[in-house]
Amino acid sequence: MQKLDKIAQLIEQEIAQVQLPQAPSGLYEPIRYILSLGGKRIRPSLLLMVGELYGKQLQPMIPVALGFEIFHNFTLLHDDLMDKADKRRGHQTVHKKWNDNTAVLSGDVMLVVAYKQIAQAPAAYMPCILNLFSQTAAEICEGQQYDMEFESRQDVAIEEYLEMIRLKTAVLLGASLKAGAILSDASAEDCELLYDLGINLGLAFQIQDDLLDVYGNSAIFGKKIGGDILCNKKTFVLLKAQNMATKEQRKRLDRWMNDCDIDNEAKITNVTALYNEIGVKPACEKVMDTYYQVALEKLEKVSLPSERKEALFRLAEYLMHRNS
Amino acid sequence: MQKLDKIAQLIEQEIAQVQLPQAPSGLYEPIRYILSLGGKRIRPSLLLMVGELYGKQLQPMIPVALGFEIFHNFTLLHDDLMDKADKRRGHQTVHKKWNDNTAVLSGDVMLVVAYKQIAQAPAAYMPCILNLFSQTAAEICEGQQYDMEFESRQDVAIEEYLEMIRLKTAVLLGASLKAGAILSDASAEDCELLYDLGINLGLAFQIQDDLLDVYGNSAIFGKKIGGDILCNKKTFVLLKAQNMATKEQRKRLDRWMNDCDIDNEAKITNVTALYNEIGVKPACEKVMDTYYQVALEKLEKVSLPSERKEALFRLAEYLMHRNS
Repeated sequence: MQKLDKIAQLIEQEIAQVQLPQAPSGLYEPIRYILSLGGKRIRPSLLLMVGELYGKQLQPMIPVALGFEIFHNFTLLHDDLMDKADKRRGHQTVHKKWNDNTAVLSGDVMLVVAYKQIAQAPAAYMPCILNLFSQTAAEICEGQQYDMEFESRQDVAIEEYLEMIRLKTAVLLGASLKAGAILSDASAEDCELLYDLGINLGLAFQIQDDLLDVYGNSAIFGKKIGGDILCNKKTFVLLKAQNMATKEQRKRLDRWMNDCDIDNEAKITNVTALYNEIGVKPACEKVMDTYYQVALEKLEKVSLPSERKEALFRLAEYLMHRNS
Repeated sequence: MQKLDKIAQLIEQEIAQVQLPQAPSGLYEPIRYILSLGGKRIRPSLLLMVGELYGKQLQPMIPVALGFEIFHNFTLLHDDLMDKADKRRGHQTVHKKWNDNTAVLSGDVMLVVAYKQIAQAPAAYMPCILNLFSQTAAEICEGQQYDMEFESRQDVAIEEYLEMIRLKTAVLLGASLKAGAILSDASAEDCELLYDLGINLGLAFQIQDDLLDVYGNSAIFGKKIGGDILCNKKTFVLLKAQNMATKEQRKRLDRWMNDCDIDNEAKITNVTALYNEIGVKPACEKVMDTYYQVALEKLEKVSLPSERKEALFRLAEYLMHRNS
């Protein structure tokens, strides 16, 4: 993971150096705060790894890579507000630490800051990168909209869920990889292969995230296990369980979900036991692995010698074998 | 006003034709709604009037003009949410008609839609227009931040207020004019003159808006008269009155403002009477007129024959002699 470490270090350095105005501090301080909370910096890493893949100078790609990371953190900031989440990466969310209006407005300017980074792409690539970025940004808003609409729906189909996570999560991974490819003068075919790699990796990644909520190690996962179960979130695990359940199992599942009096721990224990009885874990893992394999095939097909792709294969592997 | 009418008609036609995805309708319907509420379309009008000024084809400028109008409506959408305003242009605000989360998310994607319009500027001008747009967008967020901070401050200086309205209101008028100049291949000097015209017109316009809240005709102004007085909003009129008041007058002003038991009508009547006693109206009008005269001087200096500028002079005059 030497290359990845080097890139991760570079990204942290550069993020710390992003120039934001000093005043009004009430507007810009929340941006510095959320950017300082860390995270895996997956999106800029993917972008710069593609630059490495093609043996390009990384320096001119850095503003675009940061634009993707700042944009991602903007979506977290506004999503946490909309979801009324208290915690992000073990710290208070912006609307909790400040207030709702600050979350709205600092988020807005953060999106503008992301665009300012994107606009620093080398001139020849800028229009293309800008269009990719805007298209992706709009899709991510669409994904969040579907996610919110699913909360009040009882009939979400698995295909709808997959389309939602494609929009909400996967397209930004795809776009990060594709942006790296565009900035590396990759062929149109390679650009699409890398985009598709991101889409499939993103779908696998989100299914894994849904599995970790049930089967993860809370200390490593960083969130309370069973959070999705408690709020009846329509995750891939729940939808798959609904699909696989016998009539009797489905009745029990619905009963646990609709029981308002049940103790939290009991609800998590009972639903997890039912998931195990239904056998949803291996079924989800199978779907997840299918997406992961497609992702790897896309990378195989990129027109470069295998040894150059080693680092990107390892990053994909690292993402799929995380515990958090 | 023939030219202005023609341009206004063109803008309405083009706004009605802005392509937004059909789904998810919960995300895009609020954007169609707020764009359909009308308004004076000042910003795209200014931009296209500059195109006319230089005798240019307007068609290639239209996406940018719409980008400025869509951005302006995005700021109204999020500002109304932050200000908890119920009405906008006589209709329900988006967060009232839908909900807070819809206002956040539809606003976010609206900002992206504005950028998509800006990105359609002819390639040669795009980087320059994009930088102007992003810089202006960030400044407008800064202005809104100061405006919100002023609510809980008792010591706002007139200079601070003027800087706030420069950021919140004036820079977008300046940038609209400057964008028109850039797209018309105007000289750097003319670009700056037109920007400064917008800044000074914007400052005059906002002072007039503050005056209309006290001295306007409610039926024409479209808002309830005295709304700013009721919520103790730090307007130019209030700050000027505080500056001009004798010690005794200041005491009375503070008393009316801090009196929580007073009847709404009585508060408006009493504060307005005190404003009249202090003589704040002519004082504000003098400041307003100074900015307006500077705006006109900037336009005088633009290196084109006077007769070409006639329409823009008339637009400025129209804006300063409105009742609403």
